[in-house]
Amino acid sequence: MDNKYMQMAIELAKTAKGQTTPNPLVGAVIVKNNQLIGFGAHLKAGEPHAERHALAMAGKKAEGATMYVTLEPCSHHGRTPPCADAVIEAGLKKVFVATTDPNPKVAGKGIEKLKMAGIEVVEGLMKAEADDLNKVFYHFIQTKKPFVTLKSATSLDGKIATSTGESQWITSEESRMDAHRLRHEHDAILVGVNTVLEDDPSLTTRIEGGGKHPIRIILDHHLKTPVDAKLLTDNIAPTWIFTTVKADKQKVGQLSSLGAKIITMEEEEISIPSVLSYLGEMEISSLLVEGGGSINDSFLRSGEFQQVVVYLAPMLIGGRDALSSFSGIGITSLQDAPKLSVENIERIGKDIKLVLSRGVN
Amino acid sequence: MDNKYMQMAIELAKTAKGQTTPNPLVGAVIVKNNQLIGFGAHLKAGEPHAERHALAMAGKKAEGATMYVTLEPCSHHGRTPPCADAVIEAGLKKVFVATTDPNPKVAGKGIEKLKMAGIEVVEGLMKAEADDLNKVFYHFIQTKKPFVTLKSATSLDGKIATSTGESQWITSEESRMDAHRLRHEHDAILVGVNTVLEDDPSLTTRIEGGGKHPIRIILDHHLKTPVDAKLLTDNIAPTWIFTTVKADKQKVGQLSSLGAKIITMEEEEISIPSVLSYLGEMEISSLLVEGGGSINDSFLRSGEFQQVVVYLAPMLIGGRDALSSFSGIGITSLQDAPKLSVENIERIGKDIKLVLSRGVN
Repeated sequence: MDNKYMQMAIELAKTAKGQTTPNPLVGAVIVKNNQLIGFGAHLKAGEPHAERHALAMAGKKAEGATMYVTLEPCSHHGRTPPCADAVIEAGLKKVFVATTDPNPKVAGKGIEKLKMAGIEVVEGLMKAEADDLNKVFYHFIQTKKPFVTLKSATSLDGKIATSTGESQWITSEESRMDAHRLRHEHDAILVGVNTVLEDDPSLTTRIEGGGKHPIRIILDHHLKTPVDAKLLTDNIAPTWIFTTVKADKQKVGQLSSLGAKIITMEEEEISIPSVLSYLGEMEISSLLVEGGGSINDSFLRSGEFQQVVVYLAPMLIGGRDALSSFSGIGITSLQDAPKLSVENIERIGKDIKLVLSRGVN
Repeated sequence: MDNKYMQMAIELAKTAKGQTTPNPLVGAVIVKNNQLIGFGAHLKAGEPHAERHALAMAGKKAEGATMYVTLEPCSHHGRTPPCADAVIEAGLKKVFVATTDPNPKVAGKGIEKLKMAGIEVVEGLMKAEADDLNKVFYHFIQTKKPFVTLKSATSLDGKIATSTGESQWITSEESRMDAHRLRHEHDAILVGVNTVLEDDPSLTTRIEGGGKHPIRIILDHHLKTPVDAKLLTDNIAPTWIFTTVKADKQKVGQLSSLGAKIITMEEEEISIPSVLSYLGEMEISSLLVEGGGSINDSFLRSGEFQQVVVYLAPMLIGGRDALSSFSGIGITSLQDAPKLSVENIERIGKDIKLVLSRGVN
């Protein structure tokens, strides 16, 4: 039964995927005499934490009850008062905590506070699942850089277009819809200026019922982004352009006046680590990279990515001159290729979706 | 229970995968009063059919029993006498037949014979599974060409080597072992002469306990295969070389004297359909194509393939100059790309194996 309740807390946490940033996903369930008396999830930064919602639902019944919470209750005054205090005040008897908070401001202090108040605390129930829930958050807290997902959509032989440049569409509508969910779940999306010049994309989230648009980021060494690009004129979401000192000052003014945020790097070349450090400072905790081939290659060679999502269409394209999802210089020695492991395989429509994470294999 | 027994017959049939060619895989189970009294599989062309083995095991108990057989019993005198006669003689009461024989010499005649003798025949039990068992055989019988499997082993982005040419190894040992099983199950294996020149492969089956070596086929327009190639000197399996009238006559003699069979096509260019027709005449019912990129491309563009097997390593290589599994000219218009559908997805070691078949999707 403990597993069942914690599983429910995990599922509740997941329901807010993509909307709690920069806060973690958290779910909480309160049970008394095997009756569910309250549950909640953290839905948005600045709003109540999962424990608060669950306690509010349980009301006075919370006294003597057991809570299942996916993440250690906070002990510090942040945007909301500490949850550990609320748990103590409500008179809970026992708390199952799936995993501790990696935030150094919390890190075990919440659990300690509960124990000091005489509450029985059981740590580690379904820890792996709970950690997985917040891999983005943990990465961000620990590295101060966004969690980077490289996304590609190709034929079985890795092509993103035929040799004549035809690319619409290789993957199915179902895969493209799923890719929009990825946008919804990320704080920001990144492309190279070539993609802007070739496709004039909007990079917005188009899912049923509306979605959260990511901040749109262009890497543009020479500030070649055209003033009439959709990303500058549609006013749907913020657009940030990274450029270098080589950029024309007048163009900087022009693009700024269209509402774009221009970030001029001090290096001659835009470096991926510097971009990520800047985004981390701006509280961007997750970044979706949608290529093209040469931007994908820069991320690949920098090693600065945590996850790879590949949509594979059941199709072969071939052709020496057909574009691949990863072009540029590439990894020259196999032993230098970043290690990945397959996290998930799913059929989406007639396609296959693979999710891989960095890690030893 | 009927499904259970037919499933057993199907599993028995599978045990002989790769060793019955040009005959189909067939399994048979005999049951009386819910007691298993006999079972068998067809193991090798020229040897007894599945029904014969099962009847021999059952002996006199077969009288009044029920048989589950994956394919209609034969009614004609081939290399062995007709099984339908044996079933009748044994006094079976009822026969479940999963699927009818596509061979025009049989095609329903076996079933008719059983019915005429007063045996109750139930057709179509687990037909889809039984048909799948012999897709190679059916294709061969109906088209008189081998069933062609295109095999590739690549990184997630479709590369078979880095830009510097490093290719050993992208996929894991487990995948390479599995690929040897593919060789074991095919009558012949085909490569282009460039693969011979670059890798000097042996193209033999290296699996634990030994395996069946496929006939090794090289497509070689100008007969550039070197006289010291392993394929010509190791004497492990036959080697056939397709060439054109452009080939040097002296070289033809040289290679022939080493034991290779040289097939000179009358066309200026080797055409894939002609190669397949010739192989069909030679009773090659299944062909494994192991590339490289330009041979794979020829098969892709000819449309002459039935199955695609892709081993994907959890690795990204990138690089504009890195070799892809399908190169050459490629499909220029997406609507002309042969339609495939995903039949199976499997994890092999740290890799992913995809099996796709031609078909509407």
